[in-house]
Amino acid sequence: MSDFPISRFPVPELGALPEDIRTRIEAVQEKSGFIPNVFLALAHRPDEFRAFFAHHDALMERDSGLTKAEREMIVVATSAANDCHYCVIAHGAILRIRAKNPLIADQVAVNYRKADLTERQKAMLSFAMKVSRDAAAVGEADLEALRALDFSDDDIWDIGAIAAFFAQSNRLANLSAMRPNAEFYGMAR
Amino acid sequence: MSDFPISRFPVPELGALPEDIRTRIEAVQEKSGFIPNVFLALAHRPDEFRAFFAHHDALMERDSGLTKAEREMIVVATSAANDCHYCVIAHGAILRIRAKNPLIADQVAVNYRKADLTERQKAMLSFAMKVSRDAAAVGEADLEALRALDFSDDDIWDIGAIAAFFAQSNRLANLSAMRPNAEFYGMAR
Amino acid sequence: MSDFPISRFPVPELGALPEDIRTRIEAVQEKSGFIPNVFLALAHRPDEFRAFFAHHDALMERDSGLTKAEREMIVVATSAANDCHYCVIAHGAILRIRAKNPLIADQVAVNYRKADLTERQKAMLSFAMKVSRDAAAVGEADLEALRALDFSDDDIWDIGAIAAFFAQSNRLANLSAMRPNAEFYGMAR
Amino acid sequence: MSDFPISRFPVPELGALPEDIRTRIEAVQEKSGFIPNVFLALAHRPDEFRAFFAHHDALMERDSGLTKAEREMIVVATSAANDCHYCVIAHGAILRIRAKNPLIADQVAVNYRKADLTERQKAMLSFAMKVSRDAAAVGEADLEALRALDFSDDDIWDIGAIAAFFAQSNRLANLSAMRPNAEFYGMAR
Amino acid sequence: MSDFPISRFPVPELGALPEDIRTRIEAVQEKSGFIPNVFLALAHRPDEFRAFFAHHDALMERDSGLTKAEREMIVVATSAANDCHYCVIAHGAILRIRAKNPLIADQVAVNYRKADLTERQKAMLSFAMKVSRDAAAVGEADLEALRALDFSDDDIWDIGAIAAFFAQSNRLANLSAMRPNAEFYGMAR
Amino acid sequence: MSDFPISRFPVPELGALPEDIRTRIEAVQEKSGFIPNVFLALAHRPDEFRAFFAHHDALMERDSGLTKAEREMIVVATSAANDCHYCVIAHGAILRIRAKNPLIADQVAVNYRKADLTERQKAMLSFAMKVSRDAAAVGEADLEALRALDFSDDDIWDIGAIAAFFAQSNRLANLSAMRPNAEFYGMAR
Repeated sequence: MSDFPISRFPVPELGALPEDIRTRIEAVQEKSGFIPNVFLALAHRPDEFRAFFAHHDALMERDSGLTKAEREMIVVATSAANDCHYCVIAHGAILRIRAKNPLIADQVAVNYRKADLTERQKAMLSFAMKVSRDAAAVGEADLEALRALDFSDDDIWDIGAIAAFFAQSNRLANLSAMRPNAEFYGMAR
Repeated sequence: MSDFPISRFPVPELGALPEDIRTRIEAVQEKSGFIPNVFLALAHRPDEFRAFFAHHDALMERDSGLTKAEREMIVVATSAANDCHYCVIAHGAILRIRAKNPLIADQVAVNYRKADLTERQKAMLSFAMKVSRDAAAVGEADLEALRALDFSDDDIWDIGAIAAFFAQSNRLANLSAMRPNAEFYGMAR
Repeated sequence: MSDFPISRFPVPELGALPEDIRTRIEAVQEKSGFIPNVFLALAHRPDEFRAFFAHHDALMERDSGLTKAEREMIVVATSAANDCHYCVIAHGAILRIRAKNPLIADQVAVNYRKADLTERQKAMLSFAMKVSRDAAAVGEADLEALRALDFSDDDIWDIGAIAAFFAQSNRLANLSAMRPNAEFYGMAR
Repeated sequence: MSDFPISRFPVPELGALPEDIRTRIEAVQEKSGFIPNVFLALAHRPDEFRAFFAHHDALMERDSGLTKAEREMIVVATSAANDCHYCVIAHGAILRIRAKNPLIADQVAVNYRKADLTERQKAMLSFAMKVSRDAAAVGEADLEALRALDFSDDDIWDIGAIAAFFAQSNRLANLSAMRPNAEFYGMAR
Repeated sequence: MSDFPISRFPVPELGALPEDIRTRIEAVQEKSGFIPNVFLALAHRPDEFRAFFAHHDALMERDSGLTKAEREMIVVATSAANDCHYCVIAHGAILRIRAKNPLIADQVAVNYRKADLTERQKAMLSFAMKVSRDAAAVGEADLEALRALDFSDDDIWDIGAIAAFFAQSNRLANLSAMRPNAEFYGMAR
Repeated sequence: MSDFPISRFPVPELGALPEDIRTRIEAVQEKSGFIPNVFLALAHRPDEFRAFFAHHDALMERDSGLTKAEREMIVVATSAANDCHYCVIAHGAILRIRAKNPLIADQVAVNYRKADLTERQKAMLSFAMKVSRDAAAVGEADLEALRALDFSDDDIWDIGAIAAFFAQSNRLANLSAMRPNAEFYGMAR
């Protein structure tokens, strides 16, 4: 589809991958109709690949007080703050799908404070942004403010841990100049 | 040992943990003589715990062009830039042990540019700091500069991926106000 | 189409506007099929409206060594740096149209250094970003670098003056919480 | 008066300028006794010149809830934050004249929080500085704070729009290395 | 002369001061025609007063490869970067006197890169600004660049030590809201 | 003990120093068992040496509402913010001694907000950090907040003046690449 490389680092052939990784990638391909490049770009390090996606799924697929759309908002807002090409484009698409809203991803990416969100969701994103950009300053008062909006401590962990996980993902994507698939840009608009 | 809590979030009893997690923690305790608090602070989320430590070990224990001491330098330098209490104190101790040098951890934490390191190690840390603080600006020229110092692309991935992993760890530790064990401060001085 | 206000400041009825402003707005509406909100949001101040759009057109419509697509790249890159909701969404659409490229606007908005652009275009955007974010540091060396890439001094003025004009626009849009029309989001994707 | 160039870009002869622009410049010269360099430095682009000064006058000469001195305070404070040589020196002189106060311009340029101003004026400048430096963060609470000090919404637009206009001017002056006339420095001291 | 206080902290009566401090102040008053407020604002702490002015004189009065005007340029440039009201106004006056140039102080305060200085003086100020704002990053390459412009190591110490001393002075003046005397503003213009 | 130089600038022989300076250094050596490098690194400028240590002692040895341990906390916190190798290591040792607490110096250096301190001590350090990093923004409200915690105005001066003095020291140490003695690292752990 494109002459641009997926990553600065080696991208293995599907056939050369360990069985479990190949199976996982093929399952995603079956479901999405294409292989999101992050799976190919991380496959050169099988152990890191396994841990990365296990961690991703543990946070993004678990039963949580946050909806899946809200979790994707955290991903998009913090990834935009980190200028992460792959994560903003790919998770922007997922956010549009999860929220059934074609406008929301671009709004959250540019300036979540102006997005069509509830005040509670903006408070959630303010906390996620603080964890992403100045975690050392997170204090009890920040947690109290979320509790006052009926976020449980489990929810607060989810917000912070998703922001933390994508702090890692954004850096891996920027390190490798990971390229988002063209399919993501127009999805669910 | 202390009246200060280990974490803002729940810390489960050892006996209440899943078998594999308890076993892992007891192995560490046996080897170190105490349980580093990070194991206890992450245990309330078993799936995240498993993925986190699998990822940690994949990066920090693998055969690499970087020595284990050099990998700990990356941890200490980037964790200090993120004002991460737990990581600077705990990995400072590990760095002193790995490098067999009682001064190096404090030097790297305060200002790696003034530390007793080789120019090649300082270049490694400059790259790690760029990944940690401004990954969006990482470009081919940064990689070329490392290749010119005989870092392989695999080494470069290791440097960047360790900086990225601890971008996550630092945020989790700051989110939870994770407290380093008193044992770490004086270790290997 | 939406219950969200266009602006924090008064939005006059079309019929209440001075003749020349109403005529201009109706011409845009005829051409685009809808009235971009910036025309409505600035209309409460007719003299400022006239000067603003005269300045906009002088820069964006003139014969220039820069293509119209390149000028829109400058708008999108600098507006994203200023977190300007209206300008990124609306000019993102215009950039997709001008460049006949459905991917380029999102790429430029997130991180122009990773976008599918020529090195010359990236140098143009680096200069625009410096004017936008740290104009006091612009020096002869910056101009020399552009001249070496065959930008004329007239082109350099265009790059800088567009960045400067949108420094103003971004602030007006953020001041007024100007809302982009829903039509822009999916246009030319 | 000086061997230093007025601008990095072309400065046309007065006689070569379009009639309306020449007339305007001569009127200023008659009134001030000299031609402020901004008129000469922008004259190489007649359409941009006309729009720029029309916009300037629309904001700075209109009937407003802000005094002319207060509007110049906004110019000086935000231009100093942008390290804009021309605007601080030239508008510093105008501020001294408008405020009939020989000390105020230097005070506002260095640190408006320590200047001899009313608390209401300091609040006005804090808002102008927020528009100038972090407009994306401007929210309803900022407007409410000004309304509580009896600023009308029209006044608030003036404050923000002047800060936005000089965000543009400061960048044009820094782009062109525009040189303030020597006459400005000592005027009204 | 003014109803504004000189300092947030106590300002002793001249008669209540220790003999040596009173004598020093009276000598300055005799020479300048007025008492610069810094002498009064620091007098409530006699030992700190003595050390402060001894340090000031050791740097600013010594035989040096830097002219006295150049030393004042360092003071004005770094004090403006620190938004220090007292130091910019008072040392701006001294710079005009030392340099016999009525324009130079305002130029250096706003943006030394655009000031009427030699390239060597701009390099001197760039180094002083680095010491003032990011001393931890000062490296051998910075010293080499100055040596290449014929600054001796003694000159380099002077540049850095003056920037360091005024890092202290600026903070004391901002801590105490120290007010510059009205006499300074128009002096030597 | 080390092949690394103490300073980038000349380090005189003890025997070549003025009598008063040599005597002072020998007294410190007698008391500490070694000569802290700061005494040697500043000795090439006797007048500056005398003023510097007189100022240091005036602040750090005087009767004050702050304990000596609290004053060292200010030194360590602000020196860490300035990435000052010498000051963090040397004053970290002194803080451990003064506070009779082997953990406190590392805690304060990494993130004083997470350190084992009283809320009053954290407020003291927040003010010191504001003086160190953004003194121009210090306002009456900051002083009121400290007074409400029972800090006298004399205490507030001490906090601010110590932060200001070490703003200078940190810059001198970074300018000269001053090396802390190996003895400091393990002292009082």
